Amino acid sequence: MVPEGDNRPRNVCLDCGFIHYRNPLVVVGAVCDWQGKLLLCRRAIEPRKGYWTIPAGYLELEEATHVGAAREAAEEANADIAIERLLAVYNIPRISQVQVIYAARLNDANVSAGEESLEVALLDWDEIPWSDLAFPSVHWALNHFREGAETGDWQPRTNPPGDDGHY
Amino acid sequence: MVPEGDNRPRNVCLDCGFIHYRNPLVVVGAVCDWQGKLLLCRRAIEPRKGYWTIPAGYLELEEATHVGAAREAAEEANADIAIERLLAVYNIPRISQVQVIYAARLNDANVSAGEESLEVALLDWDEIPWSDLAFPSVHWALNHFREGAETGDWQPRTNPPGDDGHY
Repeated sequence: MVPEGDNRPRNVCLDCGFIHYRNPLVVVGAVCDWQGKLLLCRRAIEPRKGYWTIPAGYLELEEATHVGAAREAAEEANADIAIERLLAVYNIPRISQVQVIYAARLNDANVSAGEESLEVALLDWDEIPWSDLAFPSVHWALNHFREGAETGDWQPRTNPPGDDGHY
Repeated sequence: MVPEGDNRPRNVCLDCGFIHYRNPLVVVGAVCDWQGKLLLCRRAIEPRKGYWTIPAGYLELEEATHVGAAREAAEEANADIAIERLLAVYNIPRISQVQVIYAARLNDANVSAGEESLEVALLDWDEIPWSDLAFPSVHWALNHFREGAETGDWQPRTNPPGDDGHY
């Protein structure tokens, strides 16, 4: 039903009137650089188990986005990173996801697989397993990072033209 | 309890194992310009009823952030806006909120109070009711918009230094 003063149907308890809102989720992550090599993690969990991704995951309650991005790098790759800047805000409305992705540098080259990773690697650009990346937004983030590094233009990116995340 | 493979306590049904995750919420909004005047809305609803804000509200399911920002301007001020760029990403971790705020221009000066507004106004900078703004992030957004307009530097902003949103 549509609650009073609202304009969309919500899940409402007919006994007590409690409205159970369902909301988009925030994913936070980072492209992490170590002297020109980028940190990738091979996923140990579904979806897309076995495929490569940047460290990223759901923002937690009472957590700022840059803090969450650093936490995910620590959890998935035992990586100690310094957030440098906002790289991109991507929208994947089909799955109600907003992705807030940072550019970061590793404080050292000491990385290893966390519980959600099968392996992790620091890769040169031409070593990146492009056909085995887990999600379209991993492609976007890696390419946008490279654009920024090459041009010095770090204006945060959004979805590539023509890709509104409704695929 | 902490679900297997997780590292934080979640709300778990002891009968069926269903995990009820609670997640941060995304607020979307826009600073809307009409020939140097900015659009403000006086809130008709709590919290901060009677105080002034930029049009903003919760992102809906399956909605992109820039689409949500334009929807909020339409709902709260019957405003037709064109999103120009990402202005800022603010974190208010105390209330588990991520705010994605855009810079926009009004397509015409035709604005009026929507259901959630007592009144709306297009205001010059020195007409803005600074002491009657609803939230700190409204201050931030208006000031960051003015910085961008004056300097041409539209690199998206985040929380002002020293204000990590834990107030």
